[in-house]
Amino acid sequence: MSREICIYQEFLTDAHRAAIRSAADQAGLIPHFFTLDQFEEARECLQHCEVLYAHSVKLLRAAPASLKWYCCSFAGVDPYCKDPSVFANPDCMLTNSNGYGVTIAEHVVMVTLMLLRRMPEYEAVVRDRKWTNQLPIRSIRDNEFTLLGTGNIGSNVAERLRGMGAAKITGLSRSGQAVSGFDAVYPISRLDEILPSAKILIMSLPGTAETVHILDRARIALLPRDAYVINVGRGTAIEQMPLIEALNEGRLAGAALDVMDPEPLPPDHPLWSAKNLILTPHVSGNMTLGYTCDVNVEMFCADLLRYGQGKLPQNLVDRTRGY
Amino acid sequence: MSREICIYQEFLTDAHRAAIRSAADQAGLIPHFFTLDQFEEARECLQHCEVLYAHSVKLLRAAPASLKWYCCSFAGVDPYCKDPSVFANPDCMLTNSNGYGVTIAEHVVMVTLMLLRRMPEYEAVVRDRKWTNQLPIRSIRDNEFTLLGTGNIGSNVAERLRGMGAAKITGLSRSGQAVSGFDAVYPISRLDEILPSAKILIMSLPGTAETVHILDRARIALLPRDAYVINVGRGTAIEQMPLIEALNEGRLAGAALDVMDPEPLPPDHPLWSAKNLILTPHVSGNMTLGYTCDVNVEMFCADLLRYGQGKLPQNLVDRTRGY
Repeated sequence: MSREICIYQEFLTDAHRAAIRSAADQAGLIPHFFTLDQFEEARECLQHCEVLYAHSVKLLRAAPASLKWYCCSFAGVDPYCKDPSVFANPDCMLTNSNGYGVTIAEHVVMVTLMLLRRMPEYEAVVRDRKWTNQLPIRSIRDNEFTLLGTGNIGSNVAERLRGMGAAKITGLSRSGQAVSGFDAVYPISRLDEILPSAKILIMSLPGTAETVHILDRARIALLPRDAYVINVGRGTAIEQMPLIEALNEGRLAGAALDVMDPEPLPPDHPLWSAKNLILTPHVSGNMTLGYTCDVNVEMFCADLLRYGQGKLPQNLVDRTRGY
Repeated sequence: MSREICIYQEFLTDAHRAAIRSAADQAGLIPHFFTLDQFEEARECLQHCEVLYAHSVKLLRAAPASLKWYCCSFAGVDPYCKDPSVFANPDCMLTNSNGYGVTIAEHVVMVTLMLLRRMPEYEAVVRDRKWTNQLPIRSIRDNEFTLLGTGNIGSNVAERLRGMGAAKITGLSRSGQAVSGFDAVYPISRLDEILPSAKILIMSLPGTAETVHILDRARIALLPRDAYVINVGRGTAIEQMPLIEALNEGRLAGAALDVMDPEPLPPDHPLWSAKNLILTPHVSGNMTLGYTCDVNVEMFCADLLRYGQGKLPQNLVDRTRGY
């Protein structure tokens, strides 16, 4: 019996397909490619595949118990970890794709500058076809940043902030282990001690049981009045009502959220109208960017080769830990 | 008779005043400080001063013929060069202040990312409290940039783009002389040859007779359909009507203008409603930023010392050339 891979992906170029074919061939597997409009065809093919490369809970639920490896082409795998019933095979390996660091870091630099340079206020003036005097602004140069999450995204953000002259970059991670590009990294257990001096808090945490409401009402109250909060990880990491209150009452200078809870946000949600808030509809990690897709396909191909050699994939997710 | 300096400035801190006092003392001059609400007091004092540090055409017009040096705390000195009648003393030295490079470069990085990441479109969706799929975006990493103007602003922009992984940075300047940080610099005379391959055109030219409508209708038509135009120099550098037409008809991907002609823009001007255009009310070079003010004061103090020694100031502007 032939060993097969079901690939259900948008944005793959001919070069990506060729790279996957070559790696699959070396691993002794046959790839089958489907675009997002071919769900039924993909589901049917999947029944005799041992590997699935996709980002679809629905398709994964349709997989047979013989599926050995699900490679998710997104970075955030919380939908696959929270509910084990999505896997018919409880021992199915789960890997993720971390090519998003660069594009998410560019998003973070953009919204950081938009907040520091008061763009929400200038944009409101311009929409009214009015002019204004210069507002007091701040810069990345000589400024201090606190990064909650020091993984692929955090490291790419730190590198870019440093390149623009940031004075101090502090990281916070589960382990508190030193990471290149950071002036210091502390364990998240010291968060309460660090928040009162955080000027710009950049959050890029995975969605796990431990990160839900990690920035809750009490911690939002610890932030200085001139602090900015940026979140590109998971919306559940922030307790939203106290954040909205702090923004509307001027107890925080501003925020930029690319992720929120729930998504999409309902039309009557108070986040839409919060003051000095930049909202984007979960678009910071964009697969349309050639570079991101290139990296994700490279990661999948490298793990395919390891899989063919009987080795564990490098991007293996601990399904109980959630990342 | 004592030799005196009139200083008419906002945003000066005690440290700035102390630095100016010290430099003035070494140069054998006595400084008098006025804030912007003390115009009459400043004008009266100015009558017996030989140096003026300000950014006010009105105050300069009130200066005596004995004024020897006007230091403008802004970078753009076109108002002082276009109309020689603003100087009662035709031989009065004019210097400018170039501390704006960092803050303007941060503005350029911000609007570049906003254009590449389709923020005008996402912001319109969010204002309607709607959600959207990801739009195809582009990144600074691996991208190519054409900088029209390779001075203090252009160099600071190039440094930041490089730090974010730009693949190619081409400069264009009057001389075409090599500048560190650029892959190549060409003379502006080769502009027509370079525009058809310009992906992101960043303009930071001074306002002189030569730069008026340097990006005119014919040159706008040379740009590729997916090009972006960013202008932080002078509004007069772009012929605005054909730019608006190109944006509205989709012959350009987008633009970001911090400068326009005239300023403030009248309420019925077609720029306000042009497609994929980010307008800001001439705020990229912001004196409220401590760093900018620090550099500007340092430049003035260094030139004060030179002035005391009978040397020409380092930031001397050629009033006929205009920069």
